[in-house]
Amino acid sequence: MTLLFAVLGSRKETAIFNTELFVSFITAISYIIMASGVLTITASNGQLVYWSRWLFYIVSCGLLATDIALHKGLPSKKVIEIGLYTGLTMFAGFLASVFLTVEKWWFFALSSIAFIALLVELRRGENTPVMSRILAFVAITWTLFPVVFVLAPTGFGIIDTLTEVVLYGLLDLITKIIFGLYMTTKVKQ
Amino acid sequence: MTLLFAVLGSRKETAIFNTELFVSFITAISYIIMASGVLTITASNGQLVYWSRWLFYIVSCGLLATDIALHKGLPSKKVIEIGLYTGLTMFAGFLASVFLTVEKWWFFALSSIAFIALLVELRRGENTPVMSRILAFVAITWTLFPVVFVLAPTGFGIIDTLTEVVLYGLLDLITKIIFGLYMTTKVKQ
Amino acid sequence: MTLLFAVLGSRKETAIFNTELFVSFITAISYIIMASGVLTITASNGQLVYWSRWLFYIVSCGLLATDIALHKGLPSKKVIEIGLYTGLTMFAGFLASVFLTVEKWWFFALSSIAFIALLVELRRGENTPVMSRILAFVAITWTLFPVVFVLAPTGFGIIDTLTEVVLYGLLDLITKIIFGLYMTTKVKQ
Repeated sequence: MTLLFAVLGSRKETAIFNTELFVSFITAISYIIMASGVLTITASNGQLVYWSRWLFYIVSCGLLATDIALHKGLPSKKVIEIGLYTGLTMFAGFLASVFLTVEKWWFFALSSIAFIALLVELRRGENTPVMSRILAFVAITWTLFPVVFVLAPTGFGIIDTLTEVVLYGLLDLITKIIFGLYMTTKVKQ
Repeated sequence: MTLLFAVLGSRKETAIFNTELFVSFITAISYIIMASGVLTITASNGQLVYWSRWLFYIVSCGLLATDIALHKGLPSKKVIEIGLYTGLTMFAGFLASVFLTVEKWWFFALSSIAFIALLVELRRGENTPVMSRILAFVAITWTLFPVVFVLAPTGFGIIDTLTEVVLYGLLDLITKIIFGLYMTTKVKQ
Repeated sequence: MTLLFAVLGSRKETAIFNTELFVSFITAISYIIMASGVLTITASNGQLVYWSRWLFYIVSCGLLATDIALHKGLPSKKVIEIGLYTGLTMFAGFLASVFLTVEKWWFFALSSIAFIALLVELRRGENTPVMSRILAFVAITWTLFPVVFVLAPTGFGIIDTLTEVVLYGLLDLITKIIFGLYMTTKVKQ
């Protein structure tokens, strides 16, 4: 299991450009930790909750969102704001995953509000056809994370932890690694 | 209890402008966590110590202090410095609240030194009458936090946890929400 | 013990300039925590592991590295990148010290890669003779930290915790306090 993630990790490091490389690094660390099985809690239905991923998303998604903002040429005040909204989204998401009581849904609501604010801010300024496609991609794929959250043992427990891990793994692969390669090879030239 | 904070939280979100909105968000999260009763320790006099607030102050007060610094037009190196001093003040404050042994007072001293450095840095540059009033307001109201700290179970335990929570709540209301509304409506136009 | 560190701490605060003062502050906090004996785990050979130092290195070494980068006049994007590489090095180092299982070495490898990336980035741009000497100093002295890590109970346990603490203490004195004084008095004028 760890070996698998290590191979994945080393493969990720071939995405040479800066932001994308950091994101791959941080994603690799996050997966090694999850593979080791520490930093989890057990939900009321007996399933494991891997809450640590949300802390790593603060950095990885924060870097991706500010990278898009920088690429659009938004002023630095807006870039910082977008970074803060992303951090807030993920931090509230972390709290929502770590709380097993009803407070969970307050954090989920706060996270959702911050996420919507993030999307609104990212749409500001001019949007080239390529940028519009990137933003639509981010809006759709990132929205699938809270959907998995609600279905998984962190929410209503409709799907089990294994399915959750696979779904998040696919989403991470798409939104971080493949998206990173796309940004590096197609957009940043 | 949680409901009360949620209502408070949603009301806070009407403070529309950026920094002030973030601060309200983070304060709301901090209060939901405190209302849930986790992240506390019991002082030697049997009273609860809510140490998590100081971690949230790193971000909320850091944003407020850098916002004032930006508004004064200080150079970005100074703004970063002010953010770091604020973070140091609150982080040492967190350590002072979490340690029940004599080390507590070393952290309290470090926090106080960083706080004084913060106030000194914030006074730099030209001060309009409005800015002088803002700085005096910050100097006085923020100084009341360590006063409560010393009186509360985190310090000598002269007042109990309930009184402490009410006093901090009032101070948070004044220094974060009302101050935020003032900055948004009167200063930033 | 605490008193000793407090005296050390106050002496450190005489390094008046900004970044160097912060670094001394943070180092002082880190040592008070280690002197108090909390935030440690016991390695399989029964020796204590002080993992908290690596978290403080994120801030202190991050500030030192970005300070060097700023002093070289590197563009702000590069400075941020250098800060991120330093943070990654220390955060992976923290994970390597906190994990007692085989995952430890994955984090050690990630930390080493980030450290090499950091050194490569710091060499960019023009290097005056003084700057070349500073960079050589950083490359050599900072590399001794992972050497101690491998020899200490965090690694193969060839040296014991006391020797480790003394060696790290000497390295911290050289790389943070003496280096800070050198930067303040010789370079920054």
